[in-house]
Amino acid sequence: MGKFDQHRSFLKSNFAEFKKITTDAKKGMPQPVKVKPYELQTELIDLPAANENTLTSKNIFTCIKERRSTRLYSDCPLSLDELSYLLWATQGITGTNRAGLTLRTVPCSGATHSFESYLLIRNVANIPKGVYRYLPVEHKLLFMFELDRLENKIDEITLDQPFVPNFANKAAVLFLWSTTPYRSEWKYDITAHKKILIDIGHVCQNLYLASESIAAGTCAIGIYDQALVDRLLGLDGNDEFVIYLAAVGKKP
Amino acid sequence: MGKFDQHRSFLKSNFAEFKKITTDAKKGMPQPVKVKPYELQTELIDLPAANENTLTSKNIFTCIKERRSTRLYSDCPLSLDELSYLLWATQGITGTNRAGLTLRTVPCSGATHSFESYLLIRNVANIPKGVYRYLPVEHKLLFMFELDRLENKIDEITLDQPFVPNFANKAAVLFLWSTTPYRSEWKYDITAHKKILIDIGHVCQNLYLASESIAAGTCAIGIYDQALVDRLLGLDGNDEFVIYLAAVGKKP
Repeated sequence: MGKFDQHRSFLKSNFAEFKKITTDAKKGMPQPVKVKPYELQTELIDLPAANENTLTSKNIFTCIKERRSTRLYSDCPLSLDELSYLLWATQGITGTNRAGLTLRTVPCSGATHSFESYLLIRNVANIPKGVYRYLPVEHKLLFMFELDRLENKIDEITLDQPFVPNFANKAAVLFLWSTTPYRSEWKYDITAHKKILIDIGHVCQNLYLASESIAAGTCAIGIYDQALVDRLLGLDGNDEFVIYLAAVGKKP
Repeated sequence: MGKFDQHRSFLKSNFAEFKKITTDAKKGMPQPVKVKPYELQTELIDLPAANENTLTSKNIFTCIKERRSTRLYSDCPLSLDELSYLLWATQGITGTNRAGLTLRTVPCSGATHSFESYLLIRNVANIPKGVYRYLPVEHKLLFMFELDRLENKIDEITLDQPFVPNFANKAAVLFLWSTTPYRSEWKYDITAHKKILIDIGHVCQNLYLASESIAAGTCAIGIYDQALVDRLLGLDGNDEFVIYLAAVGKKP
């Protein structure tokens, strides 16, 4: 089993090693920006405030009980209220702490929140098909660009793997989460990376349960062509790159 | 930034590399057992079936909105119904798929579910203080042993780190999740480890929201003394080891 030793060590707590490290934060290096900037003249789309009107009567117990990875959807579009709720549930800002750090609907080690949320939108009411980014501070959508053959894009990104939901299965939206790891490395150095993966799991589980609460389904996708998806979103693949995906659509 | 390259590569999708690998599953090696076995004569404690009676009136929207990492608790014990609900919400079995794999309240790559749930119980009604393991198939608790100075144990495990909740702050239970990585490596080889970390994030987020729905609070703990906690639970630190912790208690 020696072949996995290095990979397994990555799963462990290496606090003793960490204590010996002078992190960039401790060196007094400037903290990296906490959310990705954008050009001020960019076209932004208002999102309604996340609200309870989109909920079905299912309580949280039933949402937990009936949650399944859903790979086939109805062709009913997601409403803008529903999309707003899912974005808020996964990355929405719900406060600030005494240190001035933003707190979100999901926990994150040291409130370093290294994620950005990109969307491939196929079927959301009143939103043209295309590629978007969520701005959590403004709770708005940033339109990035249209995409040729968007309907085939999930298959291309996920290497035509079986068991992966796609737009042919009527997914309405593909969430693509990137990480900008230095936001966490600045504070946690080599211990950042375990935290980042756990934290994106927190995010995705909120997507699962929030989807379930509005008669939608989701399916996380861990298999994808890293270089292709980073290029698609204009990410450099080193300072920012995609870490996890999930498809969402209304249930049949 | 070159110092983090290897760690960052761990966050990426390495499907191209994976395709070249003949996994143990493809070699026809036997699939490892899916849950940890136990001695038949072990003392087991029945848990009530997870049920909705423990829920407050908070809907899922409000649970998501008000979730915070909670580090100070009331001294009100968790009821056995509440503990049952939290164990079920994090690792409960809710079905089997067509391939005969167990499905749980949390999604897991390939339904490989490499986790075991251990508990340090300080304040659960009708359960003596001590160390326990959750048996998801039976939905029972397995009593492992009593613990001297249990009240100090979280501090010892977490190296007296600030911002870590502990039993002095009246936490009722400490969840300790281990991974048995070969359950996933058998199928996913070197791509298993990214999945395992994301999957434990799924688990912990359900603990956050389920706690919120019963007027309890939780706080995940990523910093711990790996060797100490593995020794405490009798894990060998290689084939099975602790991966993540969370404290839970009723809100003040």
